[in-house]
Parts: sequence; structure tokens; C-alpha cells
Amino acid sequence: MNIVRPTLVLNKTICIQNIELMNEKAKRHNLKFRPHFKTHQSIEIGRWFREIGVKCITVSSVRMAQYFANDGWDDITIAFPFNSLELDDLNKLCKHASINIVADNIDTIEKINGGLKYKTGIFIKITTGFNRVGIANTALDKINLLISSISKVKNLQFKGFISHSGHAYEAKSRNEVQNVQFDTVQKMNKLKTLFIKRYPEIQISIGDTPTCSVSEHFNNIDEIRPGNFVFFDLTQNSLGACNIDDIAVRVHCPVVSKQSNRNEIVIYGGAIHFSKDWIENIDGKPLFGRIVISKNDEKKLLSNNYYLCRMSQEHGILKVPPSICKHIEIGDIIEIIPVHSCLTAQAMGFYLTTKGEKITMMSAY
Amino acid sequence: MNIVRPTLVLNKTICIQNIELMNEKAKRHNLKFRPHFKTHQSIEIGRWFREIGVKCITVSSVRMAQYFANDGWDDITIAFPFNSLELDDLNKLCKHASINIVADNIDTIEKINGGLKYKTGIFIKITTGFNRVGIANTALDKINLLISSISKVKNLQFKGFISHSGHAYEAKSRNEVQNVQFDTVQKMNKLKTLFIKRYPEIQISIGDTPTCSVSEHFNNIDEIRPGNFVFFDLTQNSLGACNIDDIAVRVHCPVVSKQSNRNEIVIYGGAIHFSKDWIENIDGKPLFGRIVISKNDEKKLLSNNYYLCRMSQEHGILKVPPSICKHIEIGDIIEIIPVHSCLTAQAMGFYLTTKGEKITMMSAY
Repeated sequence: MNIVRPTLVLNKTICIQNIELMNEKAKRHNLKFRPHFKTHQSIEIGRWFREIGVKCITVSSVRMAQYFANDGWDDITIAFPFNSLELDDLNKLCKHASINIVADNIDTIEKINGGLKYKTGIFIKITTGFNRVGIANTALDKINLLISSISKVKNLQFKGFISHSGHAYEAKSRNEVQNVQFDTVQKMNKLKTLFIKRYPEIQISIGDTPTCSVSEHFNNIDEIRPGNFVFFDLTQNSLGACNIDDIAVRVHCPVVSKQSNRNEIVIYGGAIHFSKDWIENIDGKPLFGRIVISKNDEKKLLSNNYYLCRMSQEHGILKVPPSICKHIEIGDIIEIIPVHSCLTAQAMGFYLTTKGEKITMMSAY
Repeated sequence: MNIVRPTLVLNKTICIQNIELMNEKAKRHNLKFRPHFKTHQSIEIGRWFREIGVKCITVSSVRMAQYFANDGWDDITIAFPFNSLELDDLNKLCKHASINIVADNIDTIEKINGGLKYKTGIFIKITTGFNRVGIANTALDKINLLISSISKVKNLQFKGFISHSGHAYEAKSRNEVQNVQFDTVQKMNKLKTLFIKRYPEIQISIGDTPTCSVSEHFNNIDEIRPGNFVFFDLTQNSLGACNIDDIAVRVHCPVVSKQSNRNEIVIYGGAIHFSKDWIENIDGKPLFGRIVISKNDEKKLLSNNYYLCRMSQEHGILKVPPSICKHIEIGDIIEIIPVHSCLTAQAMGFYLTTKGEKITMMSAY
């Protein structure tokens, strides 16, 4: 590989292993596996899922549904509050594929009432504690009103309840992630019990990467939708959802400056490559990435005393030990493990596999 | 304008006014105006500068230099520590244009020694206190060694000293920004005085948007390189570098959910549109953007008690007053003033003017 600029390098072996492990877990628990494709946003990587039998997917926008539908995916849930301004595009999609949308407001249903040309599924978004979007699982009056509103819309079919326990990302331990999962499963099952008599076909869809990686508790759940596990990242590692070795992506960055007096290495690689997501490091400071250096054909992960500690638009500042600083040269390539692989992939726009094969993504706009 | 997805809308009138004001300021102080084009990254917007007589520009990467050179710009400084791995691309550029690179390490000079095919200018990067890259202005031995190293390289011409006082962004008031400028001008002038006898042609290049907007102190400086002023943003506003009305870009975002119990509006518009830069709000919490709502064809900026307070990949959460919350509907468009217009433009990939004209940008990869 001849890398001269910041490049997102994907280890296909690790990636496929991540896909297979999650697929097996879903099978083991008798769950429909509907992976979220917003992390990789790539037709090629999508096909790796299809090759092991995955048939249905999750996306985060109508545009992303179009992109994957064009590659033959025909069972897609758009897991984002439906944007009523994209009704025309939704209709084009539903002509050829089985599409589920998501809503939590009667207002949304009223906006699309009369406008759906083809059969469209809808999940009601439930919040189990994250409180970003969704109706509280206890707000039965609201839920009933929404179901009633849905039932009046031609071509709209109530499919069940969907939830994203984003508060799993605030957990401080694997145990806390497990607790979020227990709580989510319990709350969603209560809803299922309440509504399944009237709607025997309804499904419960949950699942993010932390809970799906850590937990084995999926009683009565129908479907999981993790996404990030395809690559994992330092955020998932900090939650105990993966080992460092399970992370399938790294950004390869050229060294452009050395500040030996401060034991700092400056790389070409900044906010426009990594995004600005960070996790708190052991020293209490923001960590934007971890450092892997190459030496005599061996790769070495530096301890987290040394890390990508500051970023500007294109600059990244690495804190390194003096013994390593003196051996690093301008023009060396340093590998950085990203904090948030979804945002990093989105920013980078394509992948190069460790074998040098280019893998395209959906265009960002 | 028929906006259905998050869209970066540019007010051309304000933008051109920002360009003209900075151009006049440079003229008034007898400074060469070499605006940084990394903020807008657009050939069309670049031409608005050319129309008022701007002849030289700053960019942050070799790729960006290529992009603007293709539109006829032929005096370009690449204000980023030169990435020696891009030597071939540099040579292609220098064949047709006058290019300046930047370096702060002898190692960089050694890497390119023997490889420059055409005349190339070089500025030595000086740090005046930001301590990201650059040689300290007091490290005269290092500076002399670097100049000596440069002098041995065929086709490489020492052009002077360049500095970016990024610590101006840490200022808490206009007064502190002024102080950064005084300090920078003093330090850079000392260097000029020391070296101008040996190198009578050397130039001093400084200037970021906060200092160039706020200060009138440019004694003996040759050139300024502000960039962000073309659009400004909430960061610049918080530093006192601009008024809210001087900000030329807003992201127009569809409303996709309402959480009336929390007086929160959820927009389609998140980290992949705005980036995750934030400033501290008056309540001590992170502010990711300010809210402009439209009502009866009038636009109203909400006070900063109400703002874009949380973001995920595609979701943005707006805290709004109850009186406004109840009138906002799913499918409404809300305008968000961004915190960091450079990163937002980079993420959005193109502009729509308030008159509906599409303006392209350089592709991100």
C-alpha cells in the first residue's frame, strides 16, 4: 500500500469475524438480525452480511435506504423519526422494497396521511430511558392514540415497537450495560404483552452494539439492530463491548512535524478525518485516538498514557514516550485507532483494506 | 427553495460583505491579503475574492492547492507542515504555480532534498504561544539551522516566517484577542529585525480570523491569512470577532419529532452535518448551535437560553420555550447557526444560497 494522505484502513478478516459472531449470537437467541448499516455505509461491506444469510437491514435515512435498495436489499427499516418532507422518496422506495418507517408523534402520521402509495410498515418508537426520541414505555394513552392514528392511514401497517437504549453508552462497566439491557427487555416485553392480543403480528426491535455485545438476555425479543460492531472502536472498548484487537479500522496518518521538546508528534489527521468525538482517558483528559507504531515490520500499540490528545481541522497531536519520539521520522505512517468508527468512516468516505483493495461508501451528500 | 434534508444555506450578500470588509482592512494596513480558503473550499466562492482583486491564497493541503490551482490561482501557500509523502504532487503544482510550503523540522527538508523539480518557496513555521507546530520564536539556533538546511536544497527558496496564533481562540474577551495580536506582532517583528539584513526579501505572515477581525495592530507585518471570516460562526461571535448578523451560513433542518413534555424539538441534523464542535453556553453546558425559527415570514433568533443542546449521528435536540414548542410542527424547517463553520461546511459538502443557487465545494476525499 502506498499511503500518502490520511487513509481509513479496514482489516477485512477482523470485520468478517465481527459480523459472523454477531450473526451467530442472533441465531443462538432466535433473533432476527437486522444490522444497522449506518456505520459502514458501504454496498461491498453489506454484501459480506448477505453472504452469510442476512436478509434485512437497518439504515438511518431515506437516502441510505435508497443506496442499499439499489444493491438489492428489499427489507429495510429506516430507524430514524420519519422525515415527512421525504414522502415522495419513500414512495419510490416502497414500490420495490419492504420498508418500515418509525414515528413517535401523531403529527408525523397526519403529515403522511393520504400520501402513501404503497404498503409501508411503521414501528412506534419507544424510549426506555435514553430520552432522545420516542414515547415513554409507560405512556399507554399516547401509544394507543398513535396506533389508532396509524390505523386510519391507507397503506400504513403497524409493525410493533422499536427502541434504542442509547444510555448504554453512558455505562461505566459491562455490568451497567447488562443492567440497561435487562431494563430495556423488561419494559419492551411489558408492551408486547399488553398489545399482542390486539396485534398478534407485532414485533419488538431493540439493540445497540454495547448491549448486543455484552448481554445474553434477549427473552421474547424479536429483532436486534446493532451497527457499530462491524468495526467496533475505542468507545466500545471502553464500555467492555470489545477488545482492542476486535477493532477493524485504523486511520493511517503521515507524520508531518515533531516537537521533540514536548515529546509530541504531529500527524496529518485531524477533526475532518476523525470527527471530534472523544472519550475520557485514564488521566482525565480527552482521548481522540490510540497510537499504533510500526517498527521492524512489527506493530506496537502504545499504552494509553500516550495517545492522540489534541486535534485541529487537519492536525493531530500525539503524546509519545521520549524513547519512541526520537525514532519517529517525518514521512512515517502512524496508525490511529479511532474513538468513534461511525463518524470516522463518514468523514473519510472510503476504505482501503489491509490488502490494498479500495472499498467505496455511499456519498455523504 | 425546496429543502427536504439538512442543507447548508449561504447568504451571499453577507458573505461578500465579510470578504470586502477584510479586504479593505488589509488595504488600510498595507497588508498582503492571502485569505485561507480551507473554510469555504469552493471555486465559486474563491472567485468572489478574485473579483475584488485578491491574487494570492492560503490552503491547508496539497489536494486543496491542486483544486484551486485548477481554477487559475497561481500564488498559493500551503499553510500546513509539508507532508513529504506528497512530494510528487507538489512538483506537479510548482510547474504551473508559485507555491509556498511550510516546515518546522530539518527532517522535512532532508526528506525533500534533491526532489524538488521547480522553484518552491518555503516559510519557517514559528509558534508564538499556541504550541501546536512551529519553532519557538526565541529558538534562534534551531531557526538558523533550519535556514541553513533550506539553503542547501536546490529549488527551495526561504521566504520568511509564518505563524498562526491559535491561542486567540482561547481568549475570553476582545481585549484578550488584542493582547494575543500585540504579542504575536512583537515576537514576529523581532525575528524580522534579526533576519532581514541577511534575507532582505523575507516576509512575516500571520493572522487568524479573531485577531484580524478585532485588532488594528499590524505594524511591520507583511501578510495576513484569516479564513473563517468568510462565513464567521458562533465561535467567532463568542470571541467578539463578529456579530450574529455577520454569520453567513445556517443549516436548515427538518423537524422530525417533538417531545413536548420536555419542550424539546428533534431535528434531522446531527454530528454528520455540524461536526461535534461546541462552545460553552451561559448555563455552562455545551452549545452546538443557535436556533432561528420562521413565523409569518419573519425570522426570529431565539435567546441563548434555547439552543441545539445535544447531538447524535443524525439527530439534533433543540431546547425551546413552551410557547414556541407548541407551534412547531413536524416537517417545519428550523435554521441553525453553526458553532464552527469550517467543519460544518466540510461535512455538508455543498452550499445552497438563500436565492436557491447551488455552490459546489472540493470533494472531501
